[in-house]
Amino acid sequence: MGKGIVAQSGGPTAVINNSVCGVVHAWKEQGAKDSLFGAMHGIKGVLEENFIDLSAQSSYLIESLRHTPGAALGSCRYKLQDDDYLKLLRIFQKKNIRYFFYIGGNDSMDTAHKVHQLAQQEQYELYVIGIPKTIDNDLPFTDHCPGFGSAAKYLATTVMETGIDLKGLLMSKCVTIMEVMGRNTGWLAAATALARRNAEDSPHLIYLPETPFDVERFLEDVEDTYQDIGHVYVVASEGLVDKNGKYIFAAKDRDSFGHSMLGGLAETLKTFVEKEIGIKVRCNILGTAQRAAAHCLSATDVNEAYMAGMEAVRMAAEGSSGLMVTLERDNSHGYVCLPGRIELSRVANIEKKIPHDWINKRGNGVSQNLIDYVRPLIQGEVSFPTRDGLPDFAFLDALQRRPLPVGEAG
Amino acid sequence: MGKGIVAQSGGPTAVINNSVCGVVHAWKEQGAKDSLFGAMHGIKGVLEENFIDLSAQSSYLIESLRHTPGAALGSCRYKLQDDDYLKLLRIFQKKNIRYFFYIGGNDSMDTAHKVHQLAQQEQYELYVIGIPKTIDNDLPFTDHCPGFGSAAKYLATTVMETGIDLKGLLMSKCVTIMEVMGRNTGWLAAATALARRNAEDSPHLIYLPETPFDVERFLEDVEDTYQDIGHVYVVASEGLVDKNGKYIFAAKDRDSFGHSMLGGLAETLKTFVEKEIGIKVRCNILGTAQRAAAHCLSATDVNEAYMAGMEAVRMAAEGSSGLMVTLERDNSHGYVCLPGRIELSRVANIEKKIPHDWINKRGNGVSQNLIDYVRPLIQGEVSFPTRDGLPDFAFLDALQRRPLPVGEAG
Repeated sequence: MGKGIVAQSGGPTAVINNSVCGVVHAWKEQGAKDSLFGAMHGIKGVLEENFIDLSAQSSYLIESLRHTPGAALGSCRYKLQDDDYLKLLRIFQKKNIRYFFYIGGNDSMDTAHKVHQLAQQEQYELYVIGIPKTIDNDLPFTDHCPGFGSAAKYLATTVMETGIDLKGLLMSKCVTIMEVMGRNTGWLAAATALARRNAEDSPHLIYLPETPFDVERFLEDVEDTYQDIGHVYVVASEGLVDKNGKYIFAAKDRDSFGHSMLGGLAETLKTFVEKEIGIKVRCNILGTAQRAAAHCLSATDVNEAYMAGMEAVRMAAEGSSGLMVTLERDNSHGYVCLPGRIELSRVANIEKKIPHDWINKRGNGVSQNLIDYVRPLIQGEVSFPTRDGLPDFAFLDALQRRPLPVGEAG
Repeated sequence: MGKGIVAQSGGPTAVINNSVCGVVHAWKEQGAKDSLFGAMHGIKGVLEENFIDLSAQSSYLIESLRHTPGAALGSCRYKLQDDDYLKLLRIFQKKNIRYFFYIGGNDSMDTAHKVHQLAQQEQYELYVIGIPKTIDNDLPFTDHCPGFGSAAKYLATTVMETGIDLKGLLMSKCVTIMEVMGRNTGWLAAATALARRNAEDSPHLIYLPETPFDVERFLEDVEDTYQDIGHVYVVASEGLVDKNGKYIFAAKDRDSFGHSMLGGLAETLKTFVEKEIGIKVRCNILGTAQRAAAHCLSATDVNEAYMAGMEAVRMAAEGSSGLMVTLERDNSHGYVCLPGRIELSRVANIEKKIPHDWINKRGNGVSQNLIDYVRPLIQGEVSFPTRDGLPDFAFLDALQRRPLPVGEAG
């Protein structure tokens, strides 16, 4: 059969290790006698032949990675150079590696596609399968991406909680602005609409990169909401752009208000509201917690990330290559998610945006279609082991970890 | 016996409603036939006679508030004027209110103290008891404050998760800076040290307002940690000050580096690191999520907040007034927490800071004393009901809530 390699790439998600675990599980299920390696720090680990034998690890350790966030194998953001591809192939040939599973987003699918192409050209028998991963949910041809559901659940939960906090402070006349990840798409910001169960509930206003952002309209929206409800919760996608496609967070040299600004999007919007309306603004910028909050996982997302890893091995074992695993939704009897497949060549470098009719006309909220799409993806809670009141995460390099120095706290 | 009032004040915590529930529970336990009112939006609700009869609510609703964050009664930040106190007393007299329970921080204890004093002067029989509440943990004469343990648990959990995320990205040479609440004390920032189990674990550097912050030393610390570990996780308390007592986040006009700055502390430190060391920095600023994260409560904290509410009623029923409930630690047989009491007059307007020998010599971390102090306070997890994958919170004004307009998503 030959050996296999699995690697992780780009920004991690809270469930990315589930896909690794799924690959290991299916590898054993296929009765493979050869080793399955994990490349440390993505494609760089392959180039440097920095491997760990995953098939030799205990089932207990592998299973413990399922509730551990971050990239257990390490990740990278290294763009392969032309001669790197040939070097990669020579390493595969030398080590008799016949299976390559790459867990990542857009760029990683492009890399996987090029590796697949080169192997074909060089007539080296290699099975390359991409496994989707991104909290941004921006990969095309898949209904959704592993990692998105958990990030959406954590963000919607946090908007509910901080929205209630804001509501209780009614008299202090506050606006809360939450800045949400998602690069050039608004899936994560839009998903926070799930937190609304009643008309007064947060979030009241949601701004997405799919609709050009207009500062005057934004200020009108904030004032109207404040008159109506008495407080305002704004969710804003980090990648908001104006009608010329220019990022709002880089608005420091814009002259419509003449303010000089630094910092990110939330700070920019805060300055607009405080200077133009005179209401105090608080910013919540959860940062990398959005993709790492393993204490608030979606069970649906965890299972689908695992399934995607398993499916990749099954597809390769059937003799497929140059494909990415997709998630396909079947709504005929409630929500069911099944694995599918798409050519890597078609996925690379395309960003899937929110359809325009899933956004309201004013461009400050979402329609029921969006809600119906996201809701199944955040279902189910996941329990996790704790030690001394904090999560007990697992590490592939546990034996190399240094104890705390004597006298040092922690 | 006469009627009672309970009110909430200042910034909420994730467990502040447990103290209200404890008051209601103990009020019924005392066999009181008169009503216990909740004042809507703190002391303002008392002045406006905006009450809800808590003793008439179902036990189910009251119990459901125990996992609901924010101030269920509403809060305020209103500073009473001199004639407000007399007005307050006249309302108490008119309605035969004999018990006043005020849940809050420093300023609220000062207010409660003045109400108590005026009632004594006017020879009106009134029992005033303060119930401590603050995630900042800065109230004196109590071992710790209800609200702190849950915020500490949520923050330490998030540092563990985002620290693992950062570690996985080793090769992208990143620094993460987390800005933590706490006003002029560093208790919350210091508590994140619990996330460290091994030498490489985050957080690597913790800066507290108790130690004057020096930018040059900070940059040295970051460079040293980067050389040693390959990535750097910094936790910084929002109230950091330089050796002249000037806030660091207001450093925009400082000239040591000549940078013009806006935004909060994390952005200020980010600019220092990026400009002087040239390593990319990510900021995590959890904002109000720190005091509202009901999905990550400490069971110990929940129980103690409830106990503090119950104890307040018992103290008043015994005939005490002008006191604040305290939490006393007994370590003789493991951790045990018992209620105590202190005169309101002694609490008002004092901030309890971290003892100097609980901070390391370099001023960039904590000692074992601090760890031993915080660890018992974050123990135990709390399950909560969910609906459609999100928390099912309770509201005292549930019947007045407006449904979502037809066609509006949420």
